[in-house]
Amino acid sequence: MAKIIECIPNFSEGRNQVVIDGLVATAKSIPGVTLLDHSSDQSHNRSVFTLVGDEEGIQEVAFQLVKFATENIDMTKHEGEHPRMGATDVMPFVPIKDVTTEECVEISKKVAERINKELAIPVFLYEESATSPDRKNLAKVRKGQFEGMPEKLLQEEWAPDFGERKIHPTAGVIAVGARMPLIAFNVNLDTDDVEIANKIAKIIRGSSGGYKYCKGIGVMLEDRKIAQVSMNMVNFEKCPLYRTFETIRFEAKRYGVNIIGSEIIGLTPVKALADVAEYYLQIEEFDFNKQVLENHLLG
Amino acid sequence: MAKIIECIPNFSEGRNQVVIDGLVATAKSIPGVTLLDHSSDQSHNRSVFTLVGDEEGIQEVAFQLVKFATENIDMTKHEGEHPRMGATDVMPFVPIKDVTTEECVEISKKVAERINKELAIPVFLYEESATSPDRKNLAKVRKGQFEGMPEKLLQEEWAPDFGERKIHPTAGVIAVGARMPLIAFNVNLDTDDVEIANKIAKIIRGSSGGYKYCKGIGVMLEDRKIAQVSMNMVNFEKCPLYRTFETIRFEAKRYGVNIIGSEIIGLTPVKALADVAEYYLQIEEFDFNKQVLENHLLG
Repeated sequence: MAKIIECIPNFSEGRNQVVIDGLVATAKSIPGVTLLDHSSDQSHNRSVFTLVGDEEGIQEVAFQLVKFATENIDMTKHEGEHPRMGATDVMPFVPIKDVTTEECVEISKKVAERINKELAIPVFLYEESATSPDRKNLAKVRKGQFEGMPEKLLQEEWAPDFGERKIHPTAGVIAVGARMPLIAFNVNLDTDDVEIANKIAKIIRGSSGGYKYCKGIGVMLEDRKIAQVSMNMVNFEKCPLYRTFETIRFEAKRYGVNIIGSEIIGLTPVKALADVAEYYLQIEEFDFNKQVLENHLLG
Repeated sequence: MAKIIECIPNFSEGRNQVVIDGLVATAKSIPGVTLLDHSSDQSHNRSVFTLVGDEEGIQEVAFQLVKFATENIDMTKHEGEHPRMGATDVMPFVPIKDVTTEECVEISKKVAERINKELAIPVFLYEESATSPDRKNLAKVRKGQFEGMPEKLLQEEWAPDFGERKIHPTAGVIAVGARMPLIAFNVNLDTDDVEIANKIAKIIRGSSGGYKYCKGIGVMLEDRKIAQVSMNMVNFEKCPLYRTFETIRFEAKRYGVNIIGSEIIGLTPVKALADVAEYYLQIEEFDFNKQVLENHLLG
């Protein structure tokens, strides 16, 4: 069966419709690739594209998009609320079907090498592709932003993974890497006390001692007058949805608070849901690849 | 997006490899169709094929398979343990993706009409396609089998839906219809008393007053010395897996018995699992078609 890889490049242009249309046209021009979604934010002055494709197509479209962005976005004139360091700011590759994270790491390295070779843009490898622990986290890599990059690249520990210690004059620097699909999963509580949601978020998120592959904060849903634990599940295989759900359930109990619902925002790989069903139904020896009918339909 | 329909024809030949190979070759000859699986049983002298395809392809392959079976299987010489009435015995169409049961009913009627017109085989419409309640159940339609069909067709209430009251001399009679995907779902109990599984099966199955779209029996797993409630879920949308699972859980409690696991045998549409996840995680307003990433990958 054909491998399917997702690529979610972020471009530092969210206002100039001509440039955005050009990116869309480029995304649609490569065989074996589907543009699932794209959205532009005016105040961020940033566009996010979601593409899926086979091994060959996704590499080609990734490169062609960076090329177009390099030729059409000038970072010396860019203003926007969102942190950014390049015309193409960040470009993650995500395993979707019949492909491993390791293979996506290889793909990210090939694309990064070509970007540097043909477009002379320095590239940092991040997340699963990172060459040191310091480079895993995008925020750390991007710190200093476009304006601070010329100086940052000269620092001992910040030599790019591909290219010289010198930014591209108008396209800046790019972060390329592989990561697992991210699922935005929120759990609603029957309380209007956001502090309870905050306390539970602290317990479950990796950064404060909880599940390594879960990020979480407490938020107040003002319109419904309820508190929510809002999470990013960054690796649903190593930390499945039911695990944070059940943990939130038993932690909320101490406050006499119950779960009243949850939501998944945007897309989820279906395997994340199948894993949940497998857990609650206590299914023995379920083979997702073989037993799910739809898995026999793709390619 | 392209509609995907499954077709699972059963042929009254499970021994003659030349005929089986011919059916396989026919199944693989139609564009837009994939042969997912085929298995032949010697003692039943019967083969079951599982195909998926688009609206046009599935109708064409269905007809071509019946044609091949008609030309190569002689029911006057057929012997086997499984009840049967035709060379192609039964041919259900099942909605898989972006297609309704109603559309599958229409497809089944078109194929049935063509079979009768071009091959002169009488056809009964069964299950969702049935034209009277008596014809919904395949066992009732097939009662009398090939040998009894000439007489049965003459009975007032058993005129075929397509064709004359006269069997095809060698191919007999065919049942064609639409039905929901069937999921074989078994729940294991921590008891070696099969009577408890039998009692619970009686409670949950439609035929004895339980859930209409669930069939169930109690069985003993001799190797594991545990009893099992073995079910066929014939409409996972009207009776989701979690519903029978939770009912078995609370009914078993009265005997001090617990669920220790479950199994899904063979294939399941992934939506049946997504529905389970949606229930247990209490997901609000989940849109399966839009939010499952893989749904954007198929055609």
